[in-house]
Amino acid sequence: MNASTERVDPALAAGNRKALAGYRAEHFVWRVEGGVATITLNRPERKNPLTFASYAELRDLFGDLKYATDVHAVVVTGAGDNFCSGGDVHEIIGPLVRLKAPELLMFTRMTGDLVKAMRACPQPIVAAVDGVCAGAGAIVAMASDLRVGTPRSKTAFLFNRVGLAGCDMGACAMLPRIIGQGRASELLYTGRSMSGEEGERWGFFNRLAAPEALLQEAQALATSLVQGPTFANGITKTMLHQEWAMTLEQAIEAEAQAQALCMLTQDFTRAYEAFVAKQKPKFEGN
Amino acid sequence: MNASTERVDPALAAGNRKALAGYRAEHFVWRVEGGVATITLNRPERKNPLTFASYAELRDLFGDLKYATDVHAVVVTGAGDNFCSGGDVHEIIGPLVRLKAPELLMFTRMTGDLVKAMRACPQPIVAAVDGVCAGAGAIVAMASDLRVGTPRSKTAFLFNRVGLAGCDMGACAMLPRIIGQGRASELLYTGRSMSGEEGERWGFFNRLAAPEALLQEAQALATSLVQGPTFANGITKTMLHQEWAMTLEQAIEAEAQAQALCMLTQDFTRAYEAFVAKQKPKFEGN
Amino acid sequence: MNASTERVDPALAAGNRKALAGYRAEHFVWRVEGGVATITLNRPERKNPLTFASYAELRDLFGDLKYATDVHAVVVTGAGDNFCSGGDVHEIIGPLVRLKAPELLMFTRMTGDLVKAMRACPQPIVAAVDGVCAGAGAIVAMASDLRVGTPRSKTAFLFNRVGLAGCDMGACAMLPRIIGQGRASELLYTGRSMSGEEGERWGFFNRLAAPEALLQEAQALATSLVQGPTFANGITKTMLHQEWAMTLEQAIEAEAQAQALCMLTQDFTRAYEAFVAKQKPKFEGN
Repeated sequence: MNASTERVDPALAAGNRKALAGYRAEHFVWRVEGGVATITLNRPERKNPLTFASYAELRDLFGDLKYATDVHAVVVTGAGDNFCSGGDVHEIIGPLVRLKAPELLMFTRMTGDLVKAMRACPQPIVAAVDGVCAGAGAIVAMASDLRVGTPRSKTAFLFNRVGLAGCDMGACAMLPRIIGQGRASELLYTGRSMSGEEGERWGFFNRLAAPEALLQEAQALATSLVQGPTFANGITKTMLHQEWAMTLEQAIEAEAQAQALCMLTQDFTRAYEAFVAKQKPKFEGN
Repeated sequence: MNASTERVDPALAAGNRKALAGYRAEHFVWRVEGGVATITLNRPERKNPLTFASYAELRDLFGDLKYATDVHAVVVTGAGDNFCSGGDVHEIIGPLVRLKAPELLMFTRMTGDLVKAMRACPQPIVAAVDGVCAGAGAIVAMASDLRVGTPRSKTAFLFNRVGLAGCDMGACAMLPRIIGQGRASELLYTGRSMSGEEGERWGFFNRLAAPEALLQEAQALATSLVQGPTFANGITKTMLHQEWAMTLEQAIEAEAQAQALCMLTQDFTRAYEAFVAKQKPKFEGN
Repeated sequence: MNASTERVDPALAAGNRKALAGYRAEHFVWRVEGGVATITLNRPERKNPLTFASYAELRDLFGDLKYATDVHAVVVTGAGDNFCSGGDVHEIIGPLVRLKAPELLMFTRMTGDLVKAMRACPQPIVAAVDGVCAGAGAIVAMASDLRVGTPRSKTAFLFNRVGLAGCDMGACAMLPRIIGQGRASELLYTGRSMSGEEGERWGFFNRLAAPEALLQEAQALATSLVQGPTFANGITKTMLHQEWAMTLEQAIEAEAQAQALCMLTQDFTRAYEAFVAKQKPKFEGN
């Protein structure tokens, strides 16, 4: 190996390094297998609500994923037959009604930071959504890259049911881009549930699975991504995010630079050589 | 009631106040019931065309709604079996072909100001669309927040049929966000009618109703919004508009601020207390 | 004809003039009939791949179309039963794996310039897509204004299959606006084929045609546009592009100016006069 191709420890480049396979989560279940991390919200008796502590741990974990070298896709799901019921009424809403403006903004910024971290990490995130998917739970599903639902899943941006606006954690920006401005407006103004069938028809769910096959399908989808060119996948995610508010000319230039970078990876060469050899390429993420 | 919670007359805060329930419209029918205003375009023998005067009155009325304290949702509909045939050929197009650049720009800015006013007022607007919905009529439907159609409604952005471009009153920006860039392009380039069924399938209509039930369904939807947290609904509308061209990070910060504001309303507390008491919350819009 | 209405040779105004009907294409078939140009990618034995040379010729030709006075709509199609297989593995990917950063950026900018030229020319572009539509071929279809597919067409943004990111030639900006962020994410992350039926359901295809009727349907659609007000059509296209990242207020002002310009065309007067005379207007594109 000559000097120009010797690989530098990414810890040096990034200033830190996170091998996250061994992470011990406190407020949910974290399991890594074959490069796919699965986060399971795990308070099924309450339909897996979020608490201040689980919000913060999720935010920090997705923040750490930005530099992780052993996780290349993430699946988010809920234990039991539900995804997530959102912010816990007793553990979150109760305290919030007593807070003043500075603390409230600290809370809403913290929840927004979870979405920012989900969008900033390079790993594609697949939400596996069965049953109740409500409030902040619907936001976590929306902020994922891909979504698999079930015929019985009920997704509700129910903020207005608790006296709040639909503008929570980026919903007024993201939901219209996923399902269109008119449908997003209805869900955000009324708080009504979107059925699994509607979600598939409107482009919220990439597909529906039977409840008993849901997690397996989501993990299989994530695994297929992990077997692809993971560095390039991360660039796809970054550019989908970066180009959100660019002009088309800016986006095309940004993509020219980003794709030229990907053309310098060995994965591109590996794909070409495999094609010439009539083999399936084996990507290594570099 | 202590000093900090005593409510200030909004007239002081806003610099004016509009109780609009008693407004007497000149160029359409205006009726307010239970906080829901219904605007009925009312020249059914001509399929409810717009004129210079009705455009201007609509623009001014939606402008006044920004400060109204007694209207919390708006329904727009047309008399007879049609929504609106757009700018009247004899009363609008005839004069326009004789105008010069400065006057033409004054006209196109005036029509654009109607859309700006519809987007700037805090009340969600529900369009109830039966029959012909053409030209500026299609724009009024598009600029509403929610749309209920009928199986026989025909929505046509027919500007190119009269020698004009599809870029009228914001159509090239708004229609792609509602039904997608490809479908919007077809409607704007060809001027062809979108059927009610297509409109529902593409996300233009939130739902279809039978013609005889249309107005009632639209008003019921508006009433359900009025029974919700109307201040928060207005913030939802504002943020859907504000975030149009923000980056996602900007949108998330903007929502953190806006939602923190909503968490300081009594409606948020009312919802929490109702939940604890296992009751349905009664919102008051503050 | 008095001084004020005498028409200036557009060559003077634009600084050049391109009568393109007689253009002799080197790397594809170019044919103009009734103001509609048809570009046929014509290496059917290889499913019509692009090469460095055909990319560059397409870029230059769409650039020239900006000033063309004899072409008012473009159809892009492929010979045989396929649209386009994308960048040729041997003629493009092979050389690319050996290039360094500056040359790679030159290549990705060149391909991006093709999309910029397709969006910048005033002629609406209709893609007629049968069979394989892959990689850069899928981009050419996406960068068109309207798309007609077939039940058997297979559209794949397969960049990640060759080790690259989905951000190619503007795909991360354009595809989400056409089919929604979630569906676009799936296609770009996985490289999987979108069927004709999915494409129609998701808004990628404006409609499907039988393979044997495809080209004729696309040309009929283009012809209908050419018979419309072609100057106004070009403004529609320009504004759909210009307003990509504007706020809604900016878009509405931009449209007020653009539409006022169109109201000064004779085509607008022609439409009015035809209406009054109960005739079908005959547009002349000025």
